[in-house]
Amino acid sequence: MTAERYTVSDYLLDRLAELGVDRIFGVPGDFTLALLDHVDDDTRVEWVGMANELGAGYAADGYARLRGLGVVCTTFGVGELSAINAVAGACAEHVPLLHLVGSPSTLVQSAGRATHHSLGDGDFAHTLRMTAEVTVAQSMVPLVGAEAEIDRVLTAIVQSSQPGYLSLPTDVGEAPASRPSSPLAIDPPDSDAASLSAFEAAARALLADAPRPLVLADILVDRCHTESQLHELLGSADLDFACLLWGRRVIDESDERFLGTYIGAASEPAVQRAVESAARLITVGVHFTDLTSGFFTQHLDDAHRVDLLPHTATVAGQTFPGIEMRDGLAVLTRILGAGHRRHGGPGVAPAVEPVPTHDPLTQADLWHVVTDALRPGDLVFADQGTAFYGLGAHRMPHDVLFIGQPLWASIGYTLPAVLGGALAAPERRPVLVIGDGAAQLSIAELGSIIRMRVPGIILVVNNDGYTVERAIHGPGRRYNDIARWRWADLPWAFGASPDAVRSVRVETAAELSGALAAAEGEPGILTFIEAVVDPLDVPPLLTKVAEAAAAANARMAAD
Amino acid sequence: MTAERYTVSDYLLDRLAELGVDRIFGVPGDFTLALLDHVDDDTRVEWVGMANELGAGYAADGYARLRGLGVVCTTFGVGELSAINAVAGACAEHVPLLHLVGSPSTLVQSAGRATHHSLGDGDFAHTLRMTAEVTVAQSMVPLVGAEAEIDRVLTAIVQSSQPGYLSLPTDVGEAPASRPSSPLAIDPPDSDAASLSAFEAAARALLADAPRPLVLADILVDRCHTESQLHELLGSADLDFACLLWGRRVIDESDERFLGTYIGAASEPAVQRAVESAARLITVGVHFTDLTSGFFTQHLDDAHRVDLLPHTATVAGQTFPGIEMRDGLAVLTRILGAGHRRHGGPGVAPAVEPVPTHDPLTQADLWHVVTDALRPGDLVFADQGTAFYGLGAHRMPHDVLFIGQPLWASIGYTLPAVLGGALAAPERRPVLVIGDGAAQLSIAELGSIIRMRVPGIILVVNNDGYTVERAIHGPGRRYNDIARWRWADLPWAFGASPDAVRSVRVETAAELSGALAAAEGEPGILTFIEAVVDPLDVPPLLTKVAEAAAAANARMAAD
Repeated sequence: MTAERYTVSDYLLDRLAELGVDRIFGVPGDFTLALLDHVDDDTRVEWVGMANELGAGYAADGYARLRGLGVVCTTFGVGELSAINAVAGACAEHVPLLHLVGSPSTLVQSAGRATHHSLGDGDFAHTLRMTAEVTVAQSMVPLVGAEAEIDRVLTAIVQSSQPGYLSLPTDVGEAPASRPSSPLAIDPPDSDAASLSAFEAAARALLADAPRPLVLADILVDRCHTESQLHELLGSADLDFACLLWGRRVIDESDERFLGTYIGAASEPAVQRAVESAARLITVGVHFTDLTSGFFTQHLDDAHRVDLLPHTATVAGQTFPGIEMRDGLAVLTRILGAGHRRHGGPGVAPAVEPVPTHDPLTQADLWHVVTDALRPGDLVFADQGTAFYGLGAHRMPHDVLFIGQPLWASIGYTLPAVLGGALAAPERRPVLVIGDGAAQLSIAELGSIIRMRVPGIILVVNNDGYTVERAIHGPGRRYNDIARWRWADLPWAFGASPDAVRSVRVETAAELSGALAAAEGEPGILTFIEAVVDPLDVPPLLTKVAEAAAAANARMAAD
Repeated sequence: MTAERYTVSDYLLDRLAELGVDRIFGVPGDFTLALLDHVDDDTRVEWVGMANELGAGYAADGYARLRGLGVVCTTFGVGELSAINAVAGACAEHVPLLHLVGSPSTLVQSAGRATHHSLGDGDFAHTLRMTAEVTVAQSMVPLVGAEAEIDRVLTAIVQSSQPGYLSLPTDVGEAPASRPSSPLAIDPPDSDAASLSAFEAAARALLADAPRPLVLADILVDRCHTESQLHELLGSADLDFACLLWGRRVIDESDERFLGTYIGAASEPAVQRAVESAARLITVGVHFTDLTSGFFTQHLDDAHRVDLLPHTATVAGQTFPGIEMRDGLAVLTRILGAGHRRHGGPGVAPAVEPVPTHDPLTQADLWHVVTDALRPGDLVFADQGTAFYGLGAHRMPHDVLFIGQPLWASIGYTLPAVLGGALAAPERRPVLVIGDGAAQLSIAELGSIIRMRVPGIILVVNNDGYTVERAIHGPGRRYNDIARWRWADLPWAFGASPDAVRSVRVETAAELSGALAAAEGEPGILTFIEAVVDPLDVPPLLTKVAEAAAAANARMAAD
C-alpha cells in the first residue's frame, strides 16, 4: 500500500491494532466488502467469519472481556440489527465492544432511494438512533473529519468500558486519511484530591482500631482494571473476602481466606452470616442485580461500611465524589496494610471429592464432577441457566476466569463468547458449560468453533428444554420443551474432523468423570460432551434463587 | 376459566383469534411464562417454540405473508432485540407482524432496579424507543386502558400492513379485563369521490381509443389485498402483463399473456423492450428498489402511464390523492373491460425441458431442474442470493406463491419463514431454495421444521460460501468462504426420524432431478437436498444485476 492510498479504513485498523485488537468477528455483507479487503490484507488483524451476526457479537464480547476491546463487524440494517442484542448485552455488562458497520455510500444515502437493507423510506439513520440507546458513543462516520470521529468513539469505549458504534459508508472507508500522529490519549481520570483526603480521613476513622474488615468484591473491579490493586489490599492486610456471582473472576477462590459467594438470602448460611454481620465491610465494585442478590435480599450495614465504585466512594453512607476506584483501593491499603502482611502462596480450598456413580446423572453430581475437573488457569464460560447456578455453588481453582452474563442474561451467549475468549487468551483451556435450551439459540457457532480448531471442553446439559424456567414457572408446560436434537452428532454435521474433535454422550457421573479425564489427556482436542439429566432436576442454588424471586414478587405485590 | 378471571392476556388472545391467528411463534422467557399459560390453555392458538428469536420472527413473518397477521412472542430485552431484525424486515417489506413482548411487572419497572434483561440503569423504555423506528404502532401496555391499547396497535398493523409492538408487563397480562364488545373495526379507508372522478376522466382520456395497455404489477398489490381486482382487470380486458421480482406472487406466470419479469437494464431484452416501449403502461403497486430495478435503471414513459399505489393514483404524471388501489383498479376495469373478455383457463407457458446430465451441477442447470419440478400451488421461498436470482429467470407454474425478501434482503430469512408459511397454508407444498452461506445464519430452525413435521423440499445450494457477494466483490477473498459443514448430515443431528425426512447430497443435474422426482412421490416427507455447485458459478441474472450495480456506482461516483 502506498502513502497516497492510505484510507480511513487503514486509519481505523491502525487504531484497532494500537489498542491490541488482533481479531475482528463478523459476517460479510456487500457494504463491508471493501473494508474487509483491508482487513484481509492486514497482517496484524485477522478476520473471523462467524455463522451469524449475533454469534459474532457474542464472540467479540467474549474477546473484549479478556482483551479490553473487541470488534464485531456487520453490514448495514440486516446485519447490525441481528447483532444488536449482543451490543445491548455489552452495554448492560460494561464490556468495551466496538460495533463496526459497513453502510451505503454517502451518495446512496443522500439520494434517499429504496436501497436493499434499508426500510425503503430514504431514512438511513434508523439504526443509528436505535443503537444510541445501547452504546456510549456512536457515529455515521463523515467524509470530513473521519479520523476525529473514529478517535472519539474508540476513546469513549475504552474509557467507559461500554460499547460504541461506527457506521462506515463505503466511500468514507475508501477516502484518503492522515495517519495517526500520536497514540490515542486514553488516560484514566484523576481523583479529586480534596475529596480523596476527606475520604481517607473518614475511612481511617471507621476502619482504624476497629475489627478487621471483610471485603466483598464484584464485577466492576474487572471493568475498572483494578484487580491488582484489590489483590494488593487483600494481601497486604490479610483480609477475608467474598464475592458476588457476577464478579467471581476478580478474586482467587482457591485462597483460604475466600469465604464464598454472597447472594443475599440465597447465599450459603455461613457466607450470608459472615457478610451481613461483619463488624466492618468494604465493598469494591459491587453492582447488585436481581439475579446476583437473591432478588435484592441483601442486608448490609450502612453504618460500618465503605463502598468503592468506579468513580465514587462512600463511608458509612457519606458519599465522596470524584474518587477513582484504584485510588480508593490505595487509600484503604495504606490504612489497613500495616503489619498484617501475609506470607505464602494461595492455599487450595479442600475440594469435596465426589464419588462418581453409575446411577443416572443428577444436577448435584454433575457440577461436583465438573468442578473437580477444572484446572488452574481454565477459562470457564457458564451460560445463564442451570450451568451458571450449578457452578455457582462451587469454588474455582486458582486463576480460573469464570465468566457469565447474569445481568443481561441472554441465553446462548456463552457458546460464541467462549470462541472469542479462547482466541483472546490461547494460553488458557476453554471450558464451556451450557444447557440444551440455551445452546440451541446459538448452535451454529459450534461450527465456527470447530472451524477455528479451538480446543477445550464443551459440555451441553441435555435436559430437554428450559429447566431454569421450569424452576420459576410451568414445570410441566409444553412451552418449556424444545426440539430433541442428537447433540452428540452435531459436531460431525458441523464439519468436525475425527482427529480434532471427540464427541461423547454421558448419562452417569462415572461416564462424565471419565470423559473429562480423557479430555485432560488430549489438550489439543475439542471434547464435546452431551450430559443427560432429568428435565425436572434443578441445581440447589437455582432453587434458592427461584424461591427468592417468588418471595420478592409476593412482597412487591403486597406493598 | 371463569368470567371473574378474564384477563388482559385473554383479551389479547381473543383479538388474535378474531383476526385469524392460529399460531404464535417464539421463545419462552420468564417474563412471558404467565402469558404462555394462556396460550397453552387456548384451543384456538398453538404455541410454536423456535430455536431462537430471530428464527421466530422470520417464521411469524412468513406466516403473516399468507394469513394477513403473524405474531412473534419474545421476552423483554434479550429476546426482543434478538428478533428486532425480523421486525425491521417486516417494516421494509410491508408485512403485518405483531411483536408481542413479555416485560417486567409495572412494579418492578417503577422500582427501577437492576433487573435481569435490562441495562441495569432503571430505564425500561430503551427497547420501546428502539422498536418505534421499525414499527407503525407500539405500546407498553398500561394497567388502565389495556384493551384500547391492544386494539389500537392491532388495528394499525392490519390497516397499514406494517409491524407493531405490544410489550405486556407480567402484572398487566394477569389483570382483569373486559371482553371485546364488538369485532375490531378494520375497514379499509374509502377513496375520495371527487378525486376518483377526476382520476377516471384523466385515465379515460389517456387509455380509451388508445393501443391496449401493458400492465406492470408488484408487491403492493398483495399488501393491499387487491389481487382479485387486479386479476379482474387483466381478465376482463385481456391485457398482457409483466411483474417485478418482488411481486411475482401477485400474477400468474403460467398465463400466456405473462411477458416476464421487468428488472430495468437487467431484464431479458424482450421484456425490457415491451415494458419500456409500451404505448400505454399501467403500473399497479410498483415499488422500485435497487435490487429489483437493476439499480434504478428503469425507463418508463411518464406521459403514457397510469400508476396505482396503495392510496394514490397518477395519470401522465398528474397525482390524484386519496384513491385506494382497489377503487383505482375498478375504474380501469370499467374503462378497459368492454368486449375484450377472454375465455378459457390460464395457459401454461412452454417449459424449456432441460436434459439432466451427469456432469457436475451448474447454476444454469440447477434452476432449470428446480423450476421443472415445481407444481401448481407450491409455496416457494427463495433466499436473497443465488437462489432468488436463479429462480428469477424462470417462470413459475400456475398458482405458485413465490416469496423472497428483495428489499430488506436479510440472508437466512427464508429457512424459518418457510416454516411459518407452511403452517399458515398446509394445503400447499413448501419448497425452500437457499444457499449455504444464507442457511448457516438460521440453521437451528431446520430443527424446528423437523420437529413440526413440515413436509416438502429444502434445497441447500452448497457452494462453499457467499457467491452472491463473490459476484459483487472479492471472488477469491477468504471472507466470502464459510465453515464447511456436512449439510446432508444436519437433519439427522437435528433429530430427523428416518420415516419423516430424506436427506441426499447431489452433484449432477441427473441426481438432482432424481431426488426431486422421488420427493414428489412422497408428499408427506421432508426431502432435504444438498446440491453441490462450484463456488464461482453464478446464475446469469445475478451477473446482470451485479453489473448493473457496478455501473450505477460508477455513475454516482461520476456525478
